[in-house]
Amino acid sequence: MADKKWVYLFNEVDQAEAYAGHNWDNVRGLLGGKGANLADMARLGVPVPPFFTITTEACNAFSASGKFPQGMWDQAMASLKKVEAAAGKAFGDPKNPLLVSCRSGAKFSMPGMMDTVLNIGLNDQTAPGMVKLTGNDRFVYDAYRRLIQMFGSVVLGIRDEAFEEVLNEFKKEKGARVDTELKANDLKELTEKFKVVVRQQKGFDFPQDVFEQLRLATEAVFNSWNGKRAVDYRRATNIPDDLGTAVNIVSMVFGNMGNDSGTGVAFTRDPQTGERKVFGEYLLNAQGEDVVAGIRNTEKIETLKNVLPEAYSQFMDICSKLENHYHDMQDVEFTIERGKLWMLQTRNGKRTALSQIKIAVDMANEGLTTREEAVSRVTTEQVDTLLHPQFDAKTKAAAKKEGRLYANGVNASPGAAVGQIYFDANTAERMAKESKQDVIMVRPFTKPDDVHGMLAAKGILTSEGGATSHAAVVARQFGVPCVVGASMVHIDMERRKMEVNGVVVKEGEWISVDGGTGEVYLGKLALTAASLEEQEELLTLLNWADEICAKPGIRKFPEGWPTRGLQVWANADYPKDARRARSYGAVGIGLCRTEHMFFEQERLPIVQRMILAESPKIRTEALNELLPYQRSDFQGLFEAMNGYPVIIRLIDPPLHEFLPSEDKLLEEVITMRVKGETEGLKAKEKLLASIEAMHESNPMMGLRGVRLSIVMPEIVEMQVRAIFEAAANVALAGGTPKPEVMIPLTGHVNELKWIQPRLERIAKQVLEEKGVQVLHYKFGTMIEIPRAAVTAGEIAGLAEFFSFGTNDLTQMTFGYSRDDAERNFLVKYVDDGILPKNPFQQLDRDGVGRLMKMAVEDGRKTRPSLEVGICGEHGGDPSSIEFCHIVGNNYVSCSPFRVPVARLAAAHAALNHAA
Amino acid sequence: MADKKWVYLFNEVDQAEAYAGHNWDNVRGLLGGKGANLADMARLGVPVPPFFTITTEACNAFSASGKFPQGMWDQAMASLKKVEAAAGKAFGDPKNPLLVSCRSGAKFSMPGMMDTVLNIGLNDQTAPGMVKLTGNDRFVYDAYRRLIQMFGSVVLGIRDEAFEEVLNEFKKEKGARVDTELKANDLKELTEKFKVVVRQQKGFDFPQDVFEQLRLATEAVFNSWNGKRAVDYRRATNIPDDLGTAVNIVSMVFGNMGNDSGTGVAFTRDPQTGERKVFGEYLLNAQGEDVVAGIRNTEKIETLKNVLPEAYSQFMDICSKLENHYHDMQDVEFTIERGKLWMLQTRNGKRTALSQIKIAVDMANEGLTTREEAVSRVTTEQVDTLLHPQFDAKTKAAAKKEGRLYANGVNASPGAAVGQIYFDANTAERMAKESKQDVIMVRPFTKPDDVHGMLAAKGILTSEGGATSHAAVVARQFGVPCVVGASMVHIDMERRKMEVNGVVVKEGEWISVDGGTGEVYLGKLALTAASLEEQEELLTLLNWADEICAKPGIRKFPEGWPTRGLQVWANADYPKDARRARSYGAVGIGLCRTEHMFFEQERLPIVQRMILAESPKIRTEALNELLPYQRSDFQGLFEAMNGYPVIIRLIDPPLHEFLPSEDKLLEEVITMRVKGETEGLKAKEKLLASIEAMHESNPMMGLRGVRLSIVMPEIVEMQVRAIFEAAANVALAGGTPKPEVMIPLTGHVNELKWIQPRLERIAKQVLEEKGVQVLHYKFGTMIEIPRAAVTAGEIAGLAEFFSFGTNDLTQMTFGYSRDDAERNFLVKYVDDGILPKNPFQQLDRDGVGRLMKMAVEDGRKTRPSLEVGICGEHGGDPSSIEFCHIVGNNYVSCSPFRVPVARLAAAHAALNHAA
Repeated sequence: MADKKWVYLFNEVDQAEAYAGHNWDNVRGLLGGKGANLADMARLGVPVPPFFTITTEACNAFSASGKFPQGMWDQAMASLKKVEAAAGKAFGDPKNPLLVSCRSGAKFSMPGMMDTVLNIGLNDQTAPGMVKLTGNDRFVYDAYRRLIQMFGSVVLGIRDEAFEEVLNEFKKEKGARVDTELKANDLKELTEKFKVVVRQQKGFDFPQDVFEQLRLATEAVFNSWNGKRAVDYRRATNIPDDLGTAVNIVSMVFGNMGNDSGTGVAFTRDPQTGERKVFGEYLLNAQGEDVVAGIRNTEKIETLKNVLPEAYSQFMDICSKLENHYHDMQDVEFTIERGKLWMLQTRNGKRTALSQIKIAVDMANEGLTTREEAVSRVTTEQVDTLLHPQFDAKTKAAAKKEGRLYANGVNASPGAAVGQIYFDANTAERMAKESKQDVIMVRPFTKPDDVHGMLAAKGILTSEGGATSHAAVVARQFGVPCVVGASMVHIDMERRKMEVNGVVVKEGEWISVDGGTGEVYLGKLALTAASLEEQEELLTLLNWADEICAKPGIRKFPEGWPTRGLQVWANADYPKDARRARSYGAVGIGLCRTEHMFFEQERLPIVQRMILAESPKIRTEALNELLPYQRSDFQGLFEAMNGYPVIIRLIDPPLHEFLPSEDKLLEEVITMRVKGETEGLKAKEKLLASIEAMHESNPMMGLRGVRLSIVMPEIVEMQVRAIFEAAANVALAGGTPKPEVMIPLTGHVNELKWIQPRLERIAKQVLEEKGVQVLHYKFGTMIEIPRAAVTAGEIAGLAEFFSFGTNDLTQMTFGYSRDDAERNFLVKYVDDGILPKNPFQQLDRDGVGRLMKMAVEDGRKTRPSLEVGICGEHGGDPSSIEFCHIVGNNYVSCSPFRVPVARLAAAHAALNHAA
Repeated sequence: MADKKWVYLFNEVDQAEAYAGHNWDNVRGLLGGKGANLADMARLGVPVPPFFTITTEACNAFSASGKFPQGMWDQAMASLKKVEAAAGKAFGDPKNPLLVSCRSGAKFSMPGMMDTVLNIGLNDQTAPGMVKLTGNDRFVYDAYRRLIQMFGSVVLGIRDEAFEEVLNEFKKEKGARVDTELKANDLKELTEKFKVVVRQQKGFDFPQDVFEQLRLATEAVFNSWNGKRAVDYRRATNIPDDLGTAVNIVSMVFGNMGNDSGTGVAFTRDPQTGERKVFGEYLLNAQGEDVVAGIRNTEKIETLKNVLPEAYSQFMDICSKLENHYHDMQDVEFTIERGKLWMLQTRNGKRTALSQIKIAVDMANEGLTTREEAVSRVTTEQVDTLLHPQFDAKTKAAAKKEGRLYANGVNASPGAAVGQIYFDANTAERMAKESKQDVIMVRPFTKPDDVHGMLAAKGILTSEGGATSHAAVVARQFGVPCVVGASMVHIDMERRKMEVNGVVVKEGEWISVDGGTGEVYLGKLALTAASLEEQEELLTLLNWADEICAKPGIRKFPEGWPTRGLQVWANADYPKDARRARSYGAVGIGLCRTEHMFFEQERLPIVQRMILAESPKIRTEALNELLPYQRSDFQGLFEAMNGYPVIIRLIDPPLHEFLPSEDKLLEEVITMRVKGETEGLKAKEKLLASIEAMHESNPMMGLRGVRLSIVMPEIVEMQVRAIFEAAANVALAGGTPKPEVMIPLTGHVNELKWIQPRLERIAKQVLEEKGVQVLHYKFGTMIEIPRAAVTAGEIAGLAEFFSFGTNDLTQMTFGYSRDDAERNFLVKYVDDGILPKNPFQQLDRDGVGRLMKMAVEDGRKTRPSLEVGICGEHGGDPSSIEFCHIVGNNYVSCSPFRVPVARLAAAHAALNHAA
């Protein structure tokens, strides 16, 4: 049997494609990204230096056995002959020597993680030959001494310092400040000194056999795949270990052969802005590394036109050709050797989010790509980046260098914020509103009655809590940058200061918070701003995303299930949030939390009076006072979302959340007792007793949601009346309100059987009272208790819609307290790989997801038209959105600020899972 | 088409059986229990008065339409003719009148809930005829006036008082103290007066047409099925409403026709003790109601031998015949009319638990029934009754009358207890141990550090918590009668008293607690004691139950699953509990909670030192001190359970449970600060800070179980070492220890992947150190987190056994905090029928059960030999045990005191679901 084909010549890309099943991704897997693209360019007729590629399969075989696989080296030598023929030079020939580079090239770019050796083929015979050929001895000995250093370090494992010490000594001796001040003879002398280094360090001579040079360099590149740097990088970037690297043996071309030579790098469009013009720089009479090193000032690519017009024109044609071929902006490297242009690399160029979106939209408009491709090419992170103010990387790197990185926490709500710190909501609000300061609110944790302060703040920092803590959820909801659970921060509320390792920040001092990374900096960092409305291309892209999702038949499901992709709705409590959600493209409100309305300053005392009522009469009076507030809130929502569904969740939290803190009151009472103060003690004791009676050991699993509605139905009866009075008013004014009443925390179908008919009666009664004939409305429930998911078939008998409350569902399914888990063990779990992701941030498909799938299937067995959504924090997370697409949700609902991201993620899901 | 057969004659039971599909239960459904058994006796040749039965189907038709169904009355009249022929009398014939009773008789006995009319057929013509025939005018007019009163009240709806007033007036007039002092003429006169009552009350005369009497009486009996009394009774006893009642028209026989007549009731065995001898009483010359009324002293049945030897001998034969026929103790009624014996009723007799068990075992030994029948005939409640001291019903009724019922709570641990109340564990223990008092420990709720007091107490009462609160679980575990969540009890710890509606009980005063009903009484109630060892028949019965479960093939499951029935294991923490469990028949320990050992007085300070350790060294030292304690505990367990598996759960609760209470410490610190006391303040503040740092918002979902083991592996490493050192010691001494190490609170397979191999290495290492070659051991996990159930397939990749922790699994699946739910809403939920049962007491099959079923199936797909058990509180609940049988558990594990009940329940499950 013939040996396997381990080596592909520059003109054998068709064979590689055939072997790889005509799948370009597989070709990249076989030849590596660099090798595949070089071969592809060769096929396109783009001038590339002759080369051949040893496959990743050979690398893997080498890794497994420790030696080259059978036949590989013979194939390499045969290919080398072809390369010699193409280049018109011969490897190791003193008269006309071919030099080659030996370059790593894996499927995915791992910049700087693996090894490369240049100038292979120089030795004591070929070097003089080169000198004769080029007449440039300085160039030749510079290349030779670089080969010895590179080979010594990469292949022989000699510490770089061994060469650097000799070089520095030598420069001192010659009075040269930089390498370029060394003369040709100096470099020749240095070459000899470097040979001595090799001999001293390794006990043998630098190999004069050019084939041995090549063989050892190839082995070294293979080995570098399993080097520590490369392995660490793969861990961090989730690149699998079994891909291996290819090795590219490429004829050397030189840009430093005079002023008709040069080298450069370019992007085919502007990587910052996406503008459609080639963007690059070059240097005449220079090598690639000179461009990178920045020793000489580079020229803008446009000026090449004047210097080497032919090469320039050819280069511009090639850029255009490559874009047309790859349908994406390319990042290219080129060298001009004595007037002849050589392309050394092409790949999809890295770019800013802004640029990516513009390029994607432009290319679709230019007909280079489809709209689907444009949509799939932009990542959700890129969209997210454009929607929040940022600290740019340079600013942060500089701040770190200055030791200003102060603390790390959970990255709870993206965006950057700079402000003066305040430790309580009232002060924060006062400083923001009255003193017009930029405020960062700092708390151990937040509670519902802190919301006004959080809304007034530019950013939030807490020392406790996790990604779904109150602070995190509210912050994301309102787009406030937020870091939570920064446990190294010790907050001293009494002395109004915080402290990390002895570094104290006092109230009123400045910090900078990066909610996207969880970092906290001392002082003020510069902000880069962003806004959606002005970003024409982004709006276009998101409209295309919506078009993709709207396509009927994109999902294949049983009768009654949705056939289009996901809709994106938003979680919004107030009309102004609803308006923002609409402007961001939300086509429904998936969650309006009615209790947030209870916390407003003028309402809270009424709510407390209602809760502490000692007679039904007092309670009813308080509820009657609340009704107009709620009605007017709902009316505003229906107006803002005219024609779109608005899901209103009935009261959910336990009542004690509306009362003063037990601990604080206890402290006050004890203090008064010990001091013998009696003024007002009785009242405080009574209040304390009421609060203590409501104390729960595990409030998350306590008297809340539908349980509360069953124990005390008056509150939800008032709420339903308010909802339908509001809807009726809007309808009578000519609007189209679509209220959907959501009952939270259902765990047993009998809970719905108890409460839902009662509430439906009120709805009917109100509509009758108001004389409204037609109104689209629904009653449904959250699915957030595991038992609800398990018995969804029964529950769908009553509920017309399900909305997955995946915050609580995750909490109960894992048994992880949302308030404590991150701080106590969850961060460790994720760090140690016990959990792949924080399940409060990214939906756990195997556990929580399996329950959701069961619930959707069982629910739709009972009621095929069941409307299914998600309103937990996962509704804004791309992976979770994809899962919702797969299991058959009608929509996802997320914070208004996440709506653009979710629209894109929904389209990605539709494209990746098209039926 | 012929009319449906609505009426069955006494000798038509074969026809009824054919119609009912030869299913006796259906015959009872058709003819009612009384009618079916009368007909059955007739078929057996037992003398019963001629009769016919109108079916329950006729009753239902009547209920639906308000009138007798087509053909029914004609059939009744035809049957009446046959009865006349058999009795040799004619209905309404003045010369030889037949009298009949019209008796209700439903499928299930509903004593006193429906109506009966006697002596139908008497009127102004037949009464004199009867007098002539019997020569006994007193008897005849007594019967007549009784007919009018009964008919008036039952059929015509006249208030009984209307007759009673006339009667009392009349007796006064005649100078008679009791009815029996009225003479024949008086009764005749009274009959006329009763006729006047009817006329006055209804405006028409008492019907002289005997057929009208019969028809109206039949209608009345039918109507009584839907009377309020009957409906309420059915609600309370879960008898369906659609069964209907049959009507039995039975020839009257009279025991009051002289000294050769009589009447009596008897049980075929002793209903108190089960002794095998007929047990009954009778009266000569009397009617059935005289025996019940207790006006005259009844005679023991044995004495009938001397008075009416022939009838006696026939009666004894019949008793034996009936037992042989029904294979159960019968409760019979008989009448002797002029020397001739008539049987009027037979049914399975009610009896005490003690008697039931003895009879079941005796009958199987006598060959009357199989052992399986004996086992299925005894209920788990009956076994339970025999295992706990009790207050008998009379005692409680009397106490209630005296107003001594003090409070009601959740019936957390069965059994009765009488003692003096103490409000803290230390005092309770001291009073019990030093002062040898019977103590009831009273607390708002209990914590682990109260256990010594709870163990010393005779009973426990808490004002907070539910059926699986700490107090309840510990109480059941140790068989201490316990009432929890008696929320009306206000406990004043400071003044050492409790109060309900102003009634104060002070420390040291007596109360009585019924843990089986949740009642609390003031003062001392008399106790009825019980013990297992002395109950030979119970032991026999339980052995038979075990035999049933041990039968291979009784369950049909896929390969690798258990084919025998359930085993019963016990939850036991200490060697003495293990010995008790063995003596109760447990064949394994399903749960040993290692942390209970940490709470013992001499160990707790070491545990606290370990937890608060500021350096690894201090922690290691503390753990080294704990090791010998744990090893010796485990060694004792392995010795007690020699040859049987012992599942040891590694540390589960959050560490703060081992530290002093935060609230109390906070109060102390605040008080000291306000008072300006500094002595010891620093230390207290430091401790408080440590405890506050461990504070969790929802500790049930916090840092416990395997999470704690991953964050702080040193503790479980010590525990595993202790387990295997102990096992090795026992093995080297010739024993057969079978340790199974259980990891609690697993939610993700990666948790096991992290911890289990670490612990297995320690196990192997210890066995190697000790030189033990062979030891049977396993590593496995609790399934108590919903996600563990959902991903059981993955988890079984590592776990060799699953044990369902259904307390937590129920808690998380429902999202009900075990500590709060009962108090806050769960009791209301059960009362209002929102939940059929408290899911912490009886496993919720639809929700939690569905998760369990998934887990068993998925787990055994991965590992067919997976050992599956349950160790939650449900392990002792019969319905839950049945479910465990169905889903394929290997065993259930419960408190030692519940083991006998569980053994019986397991056998019942095996019999009811035999493959």
